[in-house]
Amino acid sequence: MTYQPGRHFLQIPGPTNVPLPVLSAIAMPTIDHRGPEFSRLGMAVLSGIRTIFKTEHPVVIYPASGTGAWEAALVNTLSPGDKVLMYETGWFATLWSRMAKRLGIEVEVIAGDWRGGADADAIRERLKEDKQGAIKAVAVVHNETSTGAVTNVAAVRRAINDANHDALLLVDTISSLGSIDYRHDEWGVDVAVGGSQKGLMLPPGLSFNALSPKAIAASRTARLPRAFWDWEEMITINAKGFFPYTPSTNLLQGLRVAIGLLHEEGLENVFTRHDRAAEATRRCIEHWGFEIQCSNSAEYSSSLTAVRLPEGHSADALRAEILSRSNLSLGNGLGQLADKVFRIGHLGDFSAPAVMGTLSAIEMGLRACGVPHRSGGTNAALGFLVGNAGAS
Amino acid sequence: MTYQPGRHFLQIPGPTNVPLPVLSAIAMPTIDHRGPEFSRLGMAVLSGIRTIFKTEHPVVIYPASGTGAWEAALVNTLSPGDKVLMYETGWFATLWSRMAKRLGIEVEVIAGDWRGGADADAIRERLKEDKQGAIKAVAVVHNETSTGAVTNVAAVRRAINDANHDALLLVDTISSLGSIDYRHDEWGVDVAVGGSQKGLMLPPGLSFNALSPKAIAASRTARLPRAFWDWEEMITINAKGFFPYTPSTNLLQGLRVAIGLLHEEGLENVFTRHDRAAEATRRCIEHWGFEIQCSNSAEYSSSLTAVRLPEGHSADALRAEILSRSNLSLGNGLGQLADKVFRIGHLGDFSAPAVMGTLSAIEMGLRACGVPHRSGGTNAALGFLVGNAGAS
Amino acid sequence: MTYQPGRHFLQIPGPTNVPLPVLSAIAMPTIDHRGPEFSRLGMAVLSGIRTIFKTEHPVVIYPASGTGAWEAALVNTLSPGDKVLMYETGWFATLWSRMAKRLGIEVEVIAGDWRGGADADAIRERLKEDKQGAIKAVAVVHNETSTGAVTNVAAVRRAINDANHDALLLVDTISSLGSIDYRHDEWGVDVAVGGSQKGLMLPPGLSFNALSPKAIAASRTARLPRAFWDWEEMITINAKGFFPYTPSTNLLQGLRVAIGLLHEEGLENVFTRHDRAAEATRRCIEHWGFEIQCSNSAEYSSSLTAVRLPEGHSADALRAEILSRSNLSLGNGLGQLADKVFRIGHLGDFSAPAVMGTLSAIEMGLRACGVPHRSGGTNAALGFLVGNAGAS
Amino acid sequence: MTYQPGRHFLQIPGPTNVPLPVLSAIAMPTIDHRGPEFSRLGMAVLSGIRTIFKTEHPVVIYPASGTGAWEAALVNTLSPGDKVLMYETGWFATLWSRMAKRLGIEVEVIAGDWRGGADADAIRERLKEDKQGAIKAVAVVHNETSTGAVTNVAAVRRAINDANHDALLLVDTISSLGSIDYRHDEWGVDVAVGGSQKGLMLPPGLSFNALSPKAIAASRTARLPRAFWDWEEMITINAKGFFPYTPSTNLLQGLRVAIGLLHEEGLENVFTRHDRAAEATRRCIEHWGFEIQCSNSAEYSSSLTAVRLPEGHSADALRAEILSRSNLSLGNGLGQLADKVFRIGHLGDFSAPAVMGTLSAIEMGLRACGVPHRSGGTNAALGFLVGNAGAS
Repeated sequence: MTYQPGRHFLQIPGPTNVPLPVLSAIAMPTIDHRGPEFSRLGMAVLSGIRTIFKTEHPVVIYPASGTGAWEAALVNTLSPGDKVLMYETGWFATLWSRMAKRLGIEVEVIAGDWRGGADADAIRERLKEDKQGAIKAVAVVHNETSTGAVTNVAAVRRAINDANHDALLLVDTISSLGSIDYRHDEWGVDVAVGGSQKGLMLPPGLSFNALSPKAIAASRTARLPRAFWDWEEMITINAKGFFPYTPSTNLLQGLRVAIGLLHEEGLENVFTRHDRAAEATRRCIEHWGFEIQCSNSAEYSSSLTAVRLPEGHSADALRAEILSRSNLSLGNGLGQLADKVFRIGHLGDFSAPAVMGTLSAIEMGLRACGVPHRSGGTNAALGFLVGNAGAS
Repeated sequence: MTYQPGRHFLQIPGPTNVPLPVLSAIAMPTIDHRGPEFSRLGMAVLSGIRTIFKTEHPVVIYPASGTGAWEAALVNTLSPGDKVLMYETGWFATLWSRMAKRLGIEVEVIAGDWRGGADADAIRERLKEDKQGAIKAVAVVHNETSTGAVTNVAAVRRAINDANHDALLLVDTISSLGSIDYRHDEWGVDVAVGGSQKGLMLPPGLSFNALSPKAIAASRTARLPRAFWDWEEMITINAKGFFPYTPSTNLLQGLRVAIGLLHEEGLENVFTRHDRAAEATRRCIEHWGFEIQCSNSAEYSSSLTAVRLPEGHSADALRAEILSRSNLSLGNGLGQLADKVFRIGHLGDFSAPAVMGTLSAIEMGLRACGVPHRSGGTNAALGFLVGNAGAS
Repeated sequence: MTYQPGRHFLQIPGPTNVPLPVLSAIAMPTIDHRGPEFSRLGMAVLSGIRTIFKTEHPVVIYPASGTGAWEAALVNTLSPGDKVLMYETGWFATLWSRMAKRLGIEVEVIAGDWRGGADADAIRERLKEDKQGAIKAVAVVHNETSTGAVTNVAAVRRAINDANHDALLLVDTISSLGSIDYRHDEWGVDVAVGGSQKGLMLPPGLSFNALSPKAIAASRTARLPRAFWDWEEMITINAKGFFPYTPSTNLLQGLRVAIGLLHEEGLENVFTRHDRAAEATRRCIEHWGFEIQCSNSAEYSSSLTAVRLPEGHSADALRAEILSRSNLSLGNGLGQLADKVFRIGHLGDFSAPAVMGTLSAIEMGLRACGVPHRSGGTNAALGFLVGNAGAS
Repeated sequence: MTYQPGRHFLQIPGPTNVPLPVLSAIAMPTIDHRGPEFSRLGMAVLSGIRTIFKTEHPVVIYPASGTGAWEAALVNTLSPGDKVLMYETGWFATLWSRMAKRLGIEVEVIAGDWRGGADADAIRERLKEDKQGAIKAVAVVHNETSTGAVTNVAAVRRAINDANHDALLLVDTISSLGSIDYRHDEWGVDVAVGGSQKGLMLPPGLSFNALSPKAIAASRTARLPRAFWDWEEMITINAKGFFPYTPSTNLLQGLRVAIGLLHEEGLENVFTRHDRAAEATRRCIEHWGFEIQCSNSAEYSSSLTAVRLPEGHSADALRAEILSRSNLSLGNGLGQLADKVFRIGHLGDFSAPAVMGTLSAIEMGLRACGVPHRSGGTNAALGFLVGNAGAS
């Protein structure tokens, strides 16, 4: 491989750019996962991660990447043949529903157009019909990474309550946690699924289940086979900062530092910073004259923006040009959006000059690929960023 | 925590001391797991790991620690109610059999005394009785990490063949891979389970299933529910160096370097180095007058040695003394061996002065704790090491 | 200190952003500076650094920052009371001349206006007058870091030759080496002074003297007291890759990697990349309507650009605003230019998106500080970069 | 180069093994040496280093290795032709005196036998003779790195006082600072010379001059030419945490961490730890039957021990054997001791198992090389270490 000068810009919607203090903590020597120093580390991260999910209940940490935590959410709460209601917000919602089917769960999907969040009204109506309580869980994706659309989780909770339904609420927070406000306890979520490689600014390899007491109770009777993903042993042994099997020690060392960085900046400041990067990005895209995949401005994502290219232009060719020209990675279109959209990750360890470098690289790519656009989009972004600077 | 001067000696039987070039590769920035640079990385590690397992067939790499690969070996090959024959070599064999039961598999365990490897003759006899072929798999642990005893895997294979039985052979190589010779294809193993944190000299967080064509065929009809652990999608997408879901990118960066280091030294030299460290350790222990947990010298482990303390002396108190006095971690006794044995890891990135430092720290601990022993054990180790030096 | 999200942009004209593989090599353990592994390292860097200076003669490497190599160039070649002719291209030329005076050298300075390189004609004329050969050396700065102006070193050499004068030619290449073409042997330079922290992409701490045979001959009779800086012992002991006193081992480990990166990209490609970043920067500045400190376009620097702010605006206030708003450092005005100019470093490990991020951060700062300018400068830069992309 | 398994043991008497948190701090990105973050770093290290020298007066930090600080001590305090009285404790004292001569200083050396520290009585007698005060400075090496002998600096101070002499006292603390108690103010030293790569546990590249008010006063009239080494500008600009020319930023980042580690352990504990490692080493050597180069037990060094091999045996061959067999570096004999002694560094980031690993590697080397010795030396060391453990 030829050396590419300059820092790589990893602007896919996760994994995100890992801050050097986090990389550095990950590169400290592995320690004995059954010794006293590890116990202190375990206690620190188990307690720290709760502050990120905004919960007082247990958070289970898996030495596995995010897809595993999807599986854990399902196998700990459901039994073979149980029905789960899922909302098709995009590619990741679809993958999660496919997984549920493979695990022997009956899945009912409310179809979506991949251009917005889950429709709480539709969920309410469907639950009201379910008089027998056949539906055991409702599963939604908080921030759909394939489309850049946010689901109003609080509204989904209210919908379940309004329907007076007993279903558990399962929420994928993989690409929102640490970049978009998420309130586990306040919103009444039963199981939240998280990963290390997005707003937490770690490499991939850790994933999370944040629980509610109701979810824990459900796990006692759920009968899908489970061992690696089982919550009970985890929670018991976590009490002293340890894990039932070998944890991903070095990533936990990084997690301790990452949680510290988020609190040093302040979670609310972190969210505002993401909001501003997202708005700047959208101003630029609108100036160029492109359509944003999320069609509802109330549901725009602050983690990423998916951009639709004009008919007849390949998003993948554009991404390849930008990668080779500017050493900057963008996310590809997934599923039905393949080659039609590209996705800009503006989450994690990110700042205004990096936003501008990213948008500039894209504008250069557009020119080089001959994709018609109104030039000067980056100026629009710059104007927004500086105009709002007084507030930051 | 108070700063402890001097490098920590991590002499548990895994995780092991990670070489700095490996830590350093892990600390390089996370890259796009769907981009061309990752494809090169993926191809390199997927092909490289085969040379460590000594197989020409696929090796699946999970972004999860070793316990996950145990689960993967079972759910990909078996169906609910299938019977598996396991051999109780120690604590880890026991944990694996418990996991199988939790997953809905019928487990038949051949009891063992935790002082040696699996008895191939007993396996042969049991299989001969199984005229109907109810037993779908035989599962053994190559190197039992709780006792320091090695199972003769080739003999187990012959036993299955001699019984003319069709069972799959599943082998846990977690604490042997990269430190004790393991020959996947030559020995006819169907599924080998490996982990990153032992002989591969990485932090925990990656695990492996090395497959045989017969195992892959079995997976097509096996009906235990599976998604995260499913081999098929993995193998398909691995063909271009990618993974079906987010891999543990940074650990893979380390894996590429670690495999390179093993080949730079030469696998045979690596095994010889482990054999010598193990023999030096045993000479020392025998001089002290302690019993080695593995009672059959033909089955001694080159990865670790478990040492029985005299009645009335606490192995855990000894370990705590050594940790606080010498900043050196040893493995604890597990299950029925709790507080009765301690375990010395002499695997991974390890050299003669580190062996001597380790044994010296233990001898100091023995004196400090008043555990009766014949002093001068480290001298015996030194004599062995220098006596054989000409050969190295 | 509060955590600043996003990677810091270190856009001062050196030290520059250090690539991670170089930082990582520096963080490898210190090795025995008298052992065989060091010998290989020493040979590699002593030979490698010659390819960067484009010389076949010895290059002395000091475990000291760049100012030390200035002193070394003087004390090895001159005697008390010797006269040296220096050209006042800016602050660093001035500092070097002050140093010469402090060391007991008689300094004659040709005054300059700090807006261009050294005037070869003026040097020729002065040398022609010096019939008795009182002038023992001519000293110029190749790239004046305080103004962003390049001296035509080949022309200075020709001027000396035309004057038929025997003076040594001493050249400061600190901020040109590795970013602007420098040809030690071809241009007939006698002593070149270099540092690690600019185009070589290392932290500060190493410095260099590239020599000519004539310089080495001069050192045999030069009588300024010297010990630490003495070339002779260095050159003798360097023959086997060693150093007469403790070298800066870890920085040398980084130097080996940095030289490798420069050659992997190709020195000519490195220079072209710097030229393009510089031109993009100037297009932006001109669009804004500011004056570039270097008034002669033939002498523009590809390492940095110094920008004059309109009367009544503080360059330091602007820099402070940009630092706190965008986490980006710019160089300050030095000497007579204090608070009047700011300097943009566009050298070292740098790429197009970083150029654009840098210029965008400056444009945001200009707006925030109310410095009058024509907006859209970044667009001009972008247009240049993409327009020329086909050539890269 | 072939990969050597296991951590290298760097047991030369400096550079020493650098703790990972220090290496990691050095590998953090270079920052703007004129910005506010640097100012905080500068203030922290300038104030912190005083606590290590135990002084309330300025300590100058050079971006240069230790030999440079020798030169600085001389050129800041002396004028051409001034006389300095030096004591030949060994190779480094000799090198320092040679340097002084090269710089134009008149040097009077009190000859020594390289087997002990400087003789304060001899210094007193010589000073008493110097009625005219021709001697401007007395220079001694606190811990002679070539022999492992300590000079009683307080006694030298008293000798000067007793002689009622006005000479400055210059002390080389390079291999004592941070490992053997040194008290700048209490002992009335005028200039102490230190380096980063020994007890401070950093790579080489930083060096120090700790000053007294009298030394500062002397520097105002001293007339040896100086620029890079000049104290005055340093002290002035240091007041705000900055440096007059580019400092070695990344090593300063490491220095901040290293000072923190020393205080976390406690300086007195650090010294005791070194005393114990040294005594264990000597017990081992005495058991083997070898002579220690330092013949006066009151002057034994806690940083290193130089060992005399029996006539007819090559210390260098022994060191080469140990390096290739055990991946452990030892110091060579210097000057008149070449090939006759080897030197064991037991300073810096060092612990009991590392002491034992080191001594064991040496005993293995002795056997392999056929150097006659009484085996079991490591046992003697072990006995000492555990016997005194209660006290630690």
